[in-house]
Amino acid sequence: MSAAAEALQLRLVNGSLVDQVPADDRGLAYGDGLYETFRISDGRVTLRELHFERLGRGARRLKLELDQPLIESEVTAIATQVVEGVLKLTITRGSGPRGYRLPEPQSPLRIIQAGPLPPVDASNEKAGVRLFCCQTRLAQQPLLAGLKHLNRLEQVLARSEWQDPAIPEGLMQDTEGNLVEGTMSNLFLRFADAWVTPDLTLCGVQGVMRDYLVNALRRSGETVAERHVRMEELGQSTEVFCCNSVFGVWPVTAVAEHAWPIGAATRKAQALSMQALE
Amino acid sequence: MSAAAEALQLRLVNGSLVDQVPADDRGLAYGDGLYETFRISDGRVTLRELHFERLGRGARRLKLELDQPLIESEVTAIATQVVEGVLKLTITRGSGPRGYRLPEPQSPLRIIQAGPLPPVDASNEKAGVRLFCCQTRLAQQPLLAGLKHLNRLEQVLARSEWQDPAIPEGLMQDTEGNLVEGTMSNLFLRFADAWVTPDLTLCGVQGVMRDYLVNALRRSGETVAERHVRMEELGQSTEVFCCNSVFGVWPVTAVAEHAWPIGAATRKAQALSMQALE
Repeated sequence: MSAAAEALQLRLVNGSLVDQVPADDRGLAYGDGLYETFRISDGRVTLRELHFERLGRGARRLKLELDQPLIESEVTAIATQVVEGVLKLTITRGSGPRGYRLPEPQSPLRIIQAGPLPPVDASNEKAGVRLFCCQTRLAQQPLLAGLKHLNRLEQVLARSEWQDPAIPEGLMQDTEGNLVEGTMSNLFLRFADAWVTPDLTLCGVQGVMRDYLVNALRRSGETVAERHVRMEELGQSTEVFCCNSVFGVWPVTAVAEHAWPIGAATRKAQALSMQALE
Repeated sequence: MSAAAEALQLRLVNGSLVDQVPADDRGLAYGDGLYETFRISDGRVTLRELHFERLGRGARRLKLELDQPLIESEVTAIATQVVEGVLKLTITRGSGPRGYRLPEPQSPLRIIQAGPLPPVDASNEKAGVRLFCCQTRLAQQPLLAGLKHLNRLEQVLARSEWQDPAIPEGLMQDTEGNLVEGTMSNLFLRFADAWVTPDLTLCGVQGVMRDYLVNALRRSGETVAERHVRMEELGQSTEVFCCNSVFGVWPVTAVAEHAWPIGAATRKAQALSMQALE
């Protein structure tokens, strides 16, 4: 295992160093599972509690029977070998016969894939990013909203809409015209002296960096509201950023005809995100 | 291969008799793929054209690069060995690096799983079935509506709502209160002297048996409308049946407080379905 870890590439299926999963896995058949993408810093799992809390929430919603202590200890152990990078944990409901019915007993499958940090433009953090405005809209499904489940065709379609390598992220609205999130990140918008981040009770992924920042910003004295945001409000915001648990905070400088300066409030959120990822 | 086929159990991944798929497959990561479930009768692929037509439609919608002639010839060849049973074909976008972006080039993965017909109560066909009324609702997503894609958590949640082995299927409505489909079948409802089957432009799977029956019933002189159906209309229908490409037609005799006799119009549709599955 140590040789693989030195190269920062590692794959474990149910604790074994293998590259394959059973062809009758329900993750493959139905997207019946969950995942988490952890940033590993100095051998440590960052935002650990929030990640495992979301995993547990997802498992309860999907009636997925997890051995969460085993999963947490495995992730922690692998992180010490990865040192710096990204660790993706996928949990599926495991194998089962044909048909949607839950297998009894369930034998969940866990996949850990670790690698280096994704090769992103280092200037995104400092100079900010331009976002693509996606046509693909998110359906409103309160039963799955907030979860990081394996049904991600909406994101795949949205990400397929643009090829320009200078645009690292795309903005998504829901079918009712609410601004919801990026394809792989959450959004914060500044109106007057307060932050607003879109409500995610109908659709979207409740990112752990988003949750961390809502709390950290509030503790620092900022007002943060979670509410539905209409697409039309975008032009009225004075600062915008997107965030996730791997890259932290990217200031958003432009979307379609809108442009924003990178303000002090965004830099403050960015500094908080860096603390969480160190 | 012949030994496996005699036992009516067979699994092929990209044409090889193996039971595993790569752990970085995008079908597993994102439900990024499609499937079809064919009934094989006397070594023949039933409803063949409609199945492959839907597969092609799904591939275009998902920008999935398929070698459809290869897939069709493989399915046809395996069918001759299966003789009687079910053949499930799954096509994923294949392996790719982390992230939603489409890999270039795409290397789709094809999985064929063949087995005997599912063990269902033989009386379903003759005596009809009672349906469970699911609380899980379908989200409205026109971009994915109609396709048999691998994002099926809504069906998994719906099917997990009941355990009673005497109830083989559940009824699903969408988040706006439209009656849409069963968890694994489509619906037809009779009003006055005409059939109505729910419109599937916002959600639901456009089953090949449904499409076959719409045409076959019309050719036989029946009126069939495809339109949105409100849940409240259920009580006003005089006959109801559900259908899919494996079991054909099951008359529906009861849902919640509603009950129906099995009428002549349903028996006529059932006879047509049997012709297609022979």
